[in-house]
Amino acid sequence: MTTPEITLYTNKACPFAQRVEIAFLEAGVDVNKFQVNLQVKPEWYAPQVNPASKVPAIAFGGPKVEPDKPSPDSTKIAESLVLLEFVADLYPHAHLLPATPVERAKTRFFIDAVSTKVLPAYFAFVLRGEAPDKLFAALEDAQALLPPTGFAVGENFTIADAAVAPFLGRADIMLKNDLGKFDAGAGVAVHKEIFQGGRFSRLQKYYADITARPSWKATFDEDFLVDYTKSKTLKKL
Amino acid sequence: MTTPEITLYTNKACPFAQRVEIAFLEAGVDVNKFQVNLQVKPEWYAPQVNPASKVPAIAFGGPKVEPDKPSPDSTKIAESLVLLEFVADLYPHAHLLPATPVERAKTRFFIDAVSTKVLPAYFAFVLRGEAPDKLFAALEDAQALLPPTGFAVGENFTIADAAVAPFLGRADIMLKNDLGKFDAGAGVAVHKEIFQGGRFSRLQKYYADITARPSWKATFDEDFLVDYTKSKTLKKL
Repeated sequence: MTTPEITLYTNKACPFAQRVEIAFLEAGVDVNKFQVNLQVKPEWYAPQVNPASKVPAIAFGGPKVEPDKPSPDSTKIAESLVLLEFVADLYPHAHLLPATPVERAKTRFFIDAVSTKVLPAYFAFVLRGEAPDKLFAALEDAQALLPPTGFAVGENFTIADAAVAPFLGRADIMLKNDLGKFDAGAGVAVHKEIFQGGRFSRLQKYYADITARPSWKATFDEDFLVDYTKSKTLKKL
Repeated sequence: MTTPEITLYTNKACPFAQRVEIAFLEAGVDVNKFQVNLQVKPEWYAPQVNPASKVPAIAFGGPKVEPDKPSPDSTKIAESLVLLEFVADLYPHAHLLPATPVERAKTRFFIDAVSTKVLPAYFAFVLRGEAPDKLFAALEDAQALLPPTGFAVGENFTIADAAVAPFLGRADIMLKNDLGKFDAGAGVAVHKEIFQGGRFSRLQKYYADITARPSWKATFDEDFLVDYTKSKTLKKL
């Protein structure tokens, strides 16, 4: 059996796309990537790849084609969490999901807790300037789910870590550069609490373990993201 | 190996809990169920089963105990979509997820489309009286994902169908009884469009195929739900 063609439609600025880039690298797959310009999306992208016109998306199978001329014979798959499970299913040897049903459930519960509790509280602080209390509370709950050492559900890196990492990284650089719709200095103060204080020491170790990995270094361009965020934030503020 | 103890904490009124009840029945498992009173939750429920104090939740493994005296030695798992994957992982012979990565991705994408597009538009109409246009559009997109015959991703019943069915059933009875925060008669009109008109004929066949199954009949008590919804709706209106 030949290896199926895979193209990942992505964008360096997008945390949802970074999730999937990390998962492929953790599976040892150097996937074909196509950078989609999110400001001026190519005309063919929505009708031929993802009707929702978002990244990430994957074209899977079909003939070998240029990424900007996707084949109607490939299967198009979208939504970052769907794609994380897809990568785990494609490459079972990578153990991106644990082996037992209980451990797999813990992996998915961790993703759910971060997606439905931490992220809304984070966006409420950064995009709407609300008090950070809910963010701290949600992060404490997420931190409490972490085992004493290792990653979200144990010593192996899983899709839970791939799902969470891009948002931890962006929180780190947004807050330490005080970028967001909060009072001046509030971002730096929240950064100190989350990334330096004793209250989140387990989370800090978790973040350090994630950012030490090649899959992180290859997918997170801090200088680019700071510049990008500054340009976006200035426009919005 | 003995079969692990499993208790499902549920409630007859809750669509999220019904998802999991359906999945167990489709796997051929007559699971122990405990009805959690959602109006007056037992004191032990949040601290000993689900800190979020919601149903569904599962206690898995550990010694055989009474459901209202959960053992600290069982694993507690919550969130309906996490639990659907858990049931599929526990009973692979039931094929609640298809065999190939692509088909599994389609299953999860269908759940995502309904959860993030159809349900918010449905709640906007029923709970806030907004125009039904977005609901119709989201339902058309979901209907377009259905194959010509069978269930969400083919001839086998999957967790996608278990996830969607409880909300189709509740929409059916809410709308045909004109129960919701819309103008009088608007619910009946929307019911006619969705459940009787030609625009949604594929969806109607899908719903008929779901409601013909024993797993539906055993978990959906229409008379109870109409009474329950009327009492809740009257309180709120």
